[in-house]
Amino acid sequence: MRITDIIEKKKYGIHLEDKEIQYLIDAYVSGEAADYQLAAFAMAVYFQGMDDAETAALTMSMAESGHLLDLSALGNLSVDKHSTGGVGDKTTLIVAPLVASLGGYVSKMSGRGLGHTGGTIDKLSAIPGYKTVLEEDVFIRQTQEIGISVIQAGGVFAPADSKLYALRDVTATVDSIPLIASSVMSKKIAAGAKNIVLDVKTGSGALMKTYEASLLLAKTMVSIGKNCGRNVTALITDMDSPLGNAVGNTLEVEEAIAVLHGGGPKDLCTICQHLAGEMLALVHGGTAEEWKGKAAAALSNGNALEYFCKWIHAQGGDSKIIEDPSLLPHAKHSMTLYAPEAGYITHTDTQKIGHASLLLGAGRSKKEDTIQMGAGILLSAKCGDYVRKGDLLASLYTDDANTFSDAKDELLSSYTFSSEAPEVAPLIYDVIR
Amino acid sequence: MRITDIIEKKKYGIHLEDKEIQYLIDAYVSGEAADYQLAAFAMAVYFQGMDDAETAALTMSMAESGHLLDLSALGNLSVDKHSTGGVGDKTTLIVAPLVASLGGYVSKMSGRGLGHTGGTIDKLSAIPGYKTVLEEDVFIRQTQEIGISVIQAGGVFAPADSKLYALRDVTATVDSIPLIASSVMSKKIAAGAKNIVLDVKTGSGALMKTYEASLLLAKTMVSIGKNCGRNVTALITDMDSPLGNAVGNTLEVEEAIAVLHGGGPKDLCTICQHLAGEMLALVHGGTAEEWKGKAAAALSNGNALEYFCKWIHAQGGDSKIIEDPSLLPHAKHSMTLYAPEAGYITHTDTQKIGHASLLLGAGRSKKEDTIQMGAGILLSAKCGDYVRKGDLLASLYTDDANTFSDAKDELLSSYTFSSEAPEVAPLIYDVIR
Repeated sequence: MRITDIIEKKKYGIHLEDKEIQYLIDAYVSGEAADYQLAAFAMAVYFQGMDDAETAALTMSMAESGHLLDLSALGNLSVDKHSTGGVGDKTTLIVAPLVASLGGYVSKMSGRGLGHTGGTIDKLSAIPGYKTVLEEDVFIRQTQEIGISVIQAGGVFAPADSKLYALRDVTATVDSIPLIASSVMSKKIAAGAKNIVLDVKTGSGALMKTYEASLLLAKTMVSIGKNCGRNVTALITDMDSPLGNAVGNTLEVEEAIAVLHGGGPKDLCTICQHLAGEMLALVHGGTAEEWKGKAAAALSNGNALEYFCKWIHAQGGDSKIIEDPSLLPHAKHSMTLYAPEAGYITHTDTQKIGHASLLLGAGRSKKEDTIQMGAGILLSAKCGDYVRKGDLLASLYTDDANTFSDAKDELLSSYTFSSEAPEVAPLIYDVIR
Repeated sequence: MRITDIIEKKKYGIHLEDKEIQYLIDAYVSGEAADYQLAAFAMAVYFQGMDDAETAALTMSMAESGHLLDLSALGNLSVDKHSTGGVGDKTTLIVAPLVASLGGYVSKMSGRGLGHTGGTIDKLSAIPGYKTVLEEDVFIRQTQEIGISVIQAGGVFAPADSKLYALRDVTATVDSIPLIASSVMSKKIAAGAKNIVLDVKTGSGALMKTYEASLLLAKTMVSIGKNCGRNVTALITDMDSPLGNAVGNTLEVEEAIAVLHGGGPKDLCTICQHLAGEMLALVHGGTAEEWKGKAAAALSNGNALEYFCKWIHAQGGDSKIIEDPSLLPHAKHSMTLYAPEAGYITHTDTQKIGHASLLLGAGRSKKEDTIQMGAGILLSAKCGDYVRKGDLLASLYTDDANTFSDAKDELLSSYTFSSEAPEVAPLIYDVIR
């Protein structure tokens, strides 16, 4: 087999056999196939796509390129959750204890964030003492004991994906559905998940801006799951507005705790109940709707909060933050943004809100950047709300007051006002099983 | 400007500005843009193509990436010729002295061959003593004195093209018309040519297998010429059969000398007269048809042969080969191939004939391979001919008798026989000016 022949077949739109894809990925990891060859291949995939069998073969080849975590000790109770990323998405902090409180095992590896979407691990790092790294046996034992472990994904999993992902970033080959889908799924499969619920975000703050692209991505990942012997459900959820009102690490932890206390923003609660419902249906059987009801109860009766507390404590974090959020790191400075005109907020460019938050110091534009845990934005009005001129739109937080001016301009430019109320977009578009 | 933005624009089919292409090529030469980025770019060009302005900008950027030869000392009399490569194409050996004998200046840089098509420099290297490298001033002075210099193209010309060409070879991005066209033209422009005649081969032995692809390549190169201030004429000529009867370095030199003696195969003579006619029309004005007639006379009256003799002598070669071809290196072994059945030869897969010749030792499959000068094939029957069973089809030559078996099988498999005479394909399909 020759690498160039494999690239050429894809270029001409000829189906690639499993063994050809396997050969390509093995050769890439071993160094026999060069970055420039995979770059050409990725671009050919952008244009020609990949069929379901090819996408599954690519996923498995990348998953098997490194360590495969064995979660068999957790039986079928283990369930993973993945979001394609959005602004204000703190669902893992809520869903993990929620599912654990109802008998599911959430042993999860998460990433740090890059760009306007902060990672779950960044949010957890706002909690004083929280250990983002655990030995594999500790990771599994903790899950058996309290139902949850959430640690930082290590480089030993799917190294082929890490290598290809970094290459795609510098060769303008990021936006290919089969490449995105196989990247996500290879990491999930390597991390041992047998049951996986995917939260595919759609809208101005998501990787996929249109419903159609999100649907295709969701279907592709569910198909990979089927072809690779995993139980996968994908929700397509709205990211045309931030999820909840808080954007930024400490702010999001506080909001997650509010939800676990039975309060918090309604959109965030609803999404979390849905995600938990789908996850619990995968591990226990029954309908997602039925489990969703139980999840709602576990939020209001404090059961989920109890598991959150156990989890944070088990991973070395200071669980006193739950009752006293002032123990979380907060920003030195704050400012407020008021509505410049009266009207309905008919649209918010959510990527811009994420970017404003990044400017304040809440995210990374380069891998090396450090995050200000307290920085971010708290929204007081969201898409669909009516505001009078001078009403509070948002509060901005940062340790560096010099960033306020740019961040405020960016944030303000994200709003569209109108005298007519907008149609309300659904929160959950679709469930793909 | 960011490299990924340029790749992305091409990926989305958005027109690239001259300065963007210039930036990309400059960055590639300086090392700021990596091989993997150009690989992705080349694959995007394969799918999205390039418009005339982009192709011209790419050509000029690559031409200007290295040394530009100044041929102004030769005025408008200088004319270059380039063939896209075919089996048995020894036209430069005939056309150069033919044009010189009629007052044109042919100062030409040629390549070594790779794959089934041997390069002009390989053929000239069969002549004992011939120097393929000359200093630039000697190169120009010799052209002024005797009308011809043919040397090996050096790495100083269009280094960006050399780098990109090598990359395309290992990334399955060879077969893109704008990339092929800009590669050819960047070298020609860097080598100083103001007048250029292109011989675009079409058919089973050519890079472009179909007339449509050849036509598009020819038109693209003529358009580049117009956009870059060069006078360019392109002929589209048949390569569904080898040109002439000889394939292999010494064999081709002998055949070229036969044509210069007023004999030789008719197809080869005709193509050479046409090419010379177009070249002379570019430098002197007048019609190609008129100059073609004068070229035919220069072949039959020995004038062209005289210039061949002067040329070989000036470049250190042994011009006694002209009267005594036994002075050329010949193969140690020969064998003959006979017709296995009676019938018309309705088709020959010319690439296979080239490959058979390569197996015998006449070409290189890797850059490092050495060529056997005497190796090759002499065809006794060609497409359109009627043969009886047992008639001589071809003679095979090599220094390594072990290669006969495979080469004979490959050669035999190139023939298609039928009881019906085939339609005769035109020798010259088109002239694009």
